[in-house]
Amino acid sequence: MNEIIYLDNAATTSLDPIVLDTMLPYMREHYGNPSSSYSIGRTSKAAIESSRKKVADLLGVKTTTIYFTSGGTESNNTAIATAVKTLGCTHIITSAIEHHAVLNTVEHYCADNIVTCSFVKLNEHGEVDYRDLEEQLQSKSNAGIKCLVSLMHANNEIGTLLDLKTAGEICNRYGAIFHSDCVQTIGHYPIQLKEYGVHFASASGHKFHGPKGTGILYVSEGTRITPLIHGGGQERRARAGTENVHGIVGFAKALELAVNNYLPDQIYISTLNSTMRDGLLKLCPEITFNNGEQSLYTVLSVNFPGNVGTDLLLAQLDRAGICASGGSACSSGNEYGSHVITALGIPQKGATLRFSFSKLTKISDIDFALETLAEILNYAKANQAL
Amino acid sequence: MNEIIYLDNAATTSLDPIVLDTMLPYMREHYGNPSSSYSIGRTSKAAIESSRKKVADLLGVKTTTIYFTSGGTESNNTAIATAVKTLGCTHIITSAIEHHAVLNTVEHYCADNIVTCSFVKLNEHGEVDYRDLEEQLQSKSNAGIKCLVSLMHANNEIGTLLDLKTAGEICNRYGAIFHSDCVQTIGHYPIQLKEYGVHFASASGHKFHGPKGTGILYVSEGTRITPLIHGGGQERRARAGTENVHGIVGFAKALELAVNNYLPDQIYISTLNSTMRDGLLKLCPEITFNNGEQSLYTVLSVNFPGNVGTDLLLAQLDRAGICASGGSACSSGNEYGSHVITALGIPQKGATLRFSFSKLTKISDIDFALETLAEILNYAKANQAL
Ligand SMILES: Cc1ncc(COP(=O)(O)O)c(C=O)c1O
Ligand SMILES: Cc1ncc(COP(=O)(O)O)c(C=O)c1O
Repeated sequence: MNEIIYLDNAATTSLDPIVLDTMLPYMREHYGNPSSSYSIGRTSKAAIESSRKKVADLLGVKTTTIYFTSGGTESNNTAIATAVKTLGCTHIITSAIEHHAVLNTVEHYCADNIVTCSFVKLNEHGEVDYRDLEEQLQSKSNAGIKCLVSLMHANNEIGTLLDLKTAGEICNRYGAIFHSDCVQTIGHYPIQLKEYGVHFASASGHKFHGPKGTGILYVSEGTRITPLIHGGGQERRARAGTENVHGIVGFAKALELAVNNYLPDQIYISTLNSTMRDGLLKLCPEITFNNGEQSLYTVLSVNFPGNVGTDLLLAQLDRAGICASGGSACSSGNEYGSHVITALGIPQKGATLRFSFSKLTKISDIDFALETLAEILNYAKANQAL
Repeated sequence: MNEIIYLDNAATTSLDPIVLDTMLPYMREHYGNPSSSYSIGRTSKAAIESSRKKVADLLGVKTTTIYFTSGGTESNNTAIATAVKTLGCTHIITSAIEHHAVLNTVEHYCADNIVTCSFVKLNEHGEVDYRDLEEQLQSKSNAGIKCLVSLMHANNEIGTLLDLKTAGEICNRYGAIFHSDCVQTIGHYPIQLKEYGVHFASASGHKFHGPKGTGILYVSEGTRITPLIHGGGQERRARAGTENVHGIVGFAKALELAVNNYLPDQIYISTLNSTMRDGLLKLCPEITFNNGEQSLYTVLSVNFPGNVGTDLLLAQLDRAGICASGGSACSSGNEYGSHVITALGIPQKGATLRFSFSKLTKISDIDFALETLAEILNYAKANQAL
């Protein structure tokens, strides 16, 4: 088999071996149930609580604001459910390019006629029209309607960043509850959550070399949280179920490594990204990019000219051992294509591909990807598909 | 530190090293997102699907009836939410000694006035009065009210078993939806789910030497399932969120080992259990047991005479390195004591302790526990607390 050239780090990342080593004692000797009061139960409990403190410190918030979940999706669901069921929000303002973990949850409550919802205006790079956000909030606020605003910090397909601070200020001005899906940014930026006036923020471990099936929900001080999953008193009665202790320990360790090495990693990954970008333009000057002006340094979203479709191009790359994606992972293999690309009105005759990088990506990976793409595109051109 | 004598296997079990070995490749090289269509994505997807097939085969059901979750609690929540939200159940019949993952979920929907609920009659060993169950179902059915019956297969505190087949027959006779929390039995008995007329069954990996944070929900053929967690299309649109691939692989391997070694394990553990029982009676003939006539072989629930309270006795055992529990793990440290013991009306002057065993428990562990208990009880007697 070919060596794998993994350029899909926005879909998931490999588990850092150091993180695995931190988890292993909790998969071997420290197996106690954290709810048990004897010695090995207390060891597990202490591991969870010190993980919580670590995460909170890294995000610049109080320990009591961090809740462990089974992933970014559950965190998003819990935030939205809380806003709707407990915090009295009857209207949700979100965007058409949110992750399905937000979109489908909002749709669920809309379908139940519990809330109404509207989308904020975006430009073709997925950048939020803050004036539109403000106008929508103002008119709802005038009508006495309490809003939840759910806007992702960075889009997973096109990398475009939200200005969290601006969005937070607007939300707070109109008494709205503000949730941000930070799954693509927590672990990639040294985010100090308290600065943004956000009530809820979601993160997922497997996006920054932590374990799959782990996540957190940040709930700002003074904001109540409603359990999505009922049962035992775990997570201060907010999230029932025996804790995934090794997963929690791994989440915290991965976040620690990510935040502590943030600067060199960002510089390195940004270089990979611009090398790819420049190389692509050299290959084919008609190529365009979907990333917003402020964008994740980990993601490059590329529109190829010509007739070669996304799936075909991905399959050709796969044959060469190169992993990239069309839309996001959970819509790949989705016959309807990417809802993000569709919502932004990006003409989709040619392929739209996402390449996403991590600290483990090598410069030689980029070179190989560019060479392979050159071959594929030249062949397509020769056969008049480009 | 003392060696740990772990007699709390109903709270959680240690991860089998063979299970860990099966998981490790999915924490190292096979890190692809199962939703990604390229090679390493397909490897992850294949691991999930072969785990699903393995679990289904072991439980004697079709592959499409098994859904992976983050644990027994989430499975219970999903079953009850589905019955209430999608299957039209407006009354829930359950028992007062269910796990909180059932009780608190039922209470949640009752508090929202979405459903009403009632408890089935139990005797002092927690055995269900099937005539009462039938009468309740009959009267609801006559009134045109569709019921969900949620009864656990085995009680986690006192071991008492439900006759699944009888309960299932009664439920089906009255068109009720039948959910059984099988968290204490799946992995401990060679259960063939199709024989019982159950619509939903829950299981949890960490109860049979699998990983924490993993579970399944069985949903019988033809029964619809409503997602509790919305988002991507994972688990055939029933449970969104990037899959905990290593956890799923571990769950399936643990179940395989448990079911394949069921007979010798049961014989061995039953011997441990009766050795403990006999030893306790020799120590103190006034001791009584709460287990029903049909009971988990893994659990022994003991009432001690005298004035020594549960917490004190547990603390003394803990000091000797012995892990046992009062109520269940997630109510230990709970100031209100066990809801099961309370519901059964067991006089609680003396301590009520649960000892629970696994294939890894040694005969010498039982001997040591008996010796330690002898010392504690003799000391208490000498000090007139017994
Ligand atoms: C009977 C029963 N149901 C449900 C659960 C919850 O399972 P989990 O801890 O995997 O959420 C447990 C144990 O904690 C249990 O013993
Ligand atoms: C922006 C965004 N939100 C939410 C999620 C869901 O997170 P998880 O896979 O941990 O459920 C993802 C990735 O899958 C994502 O990219």
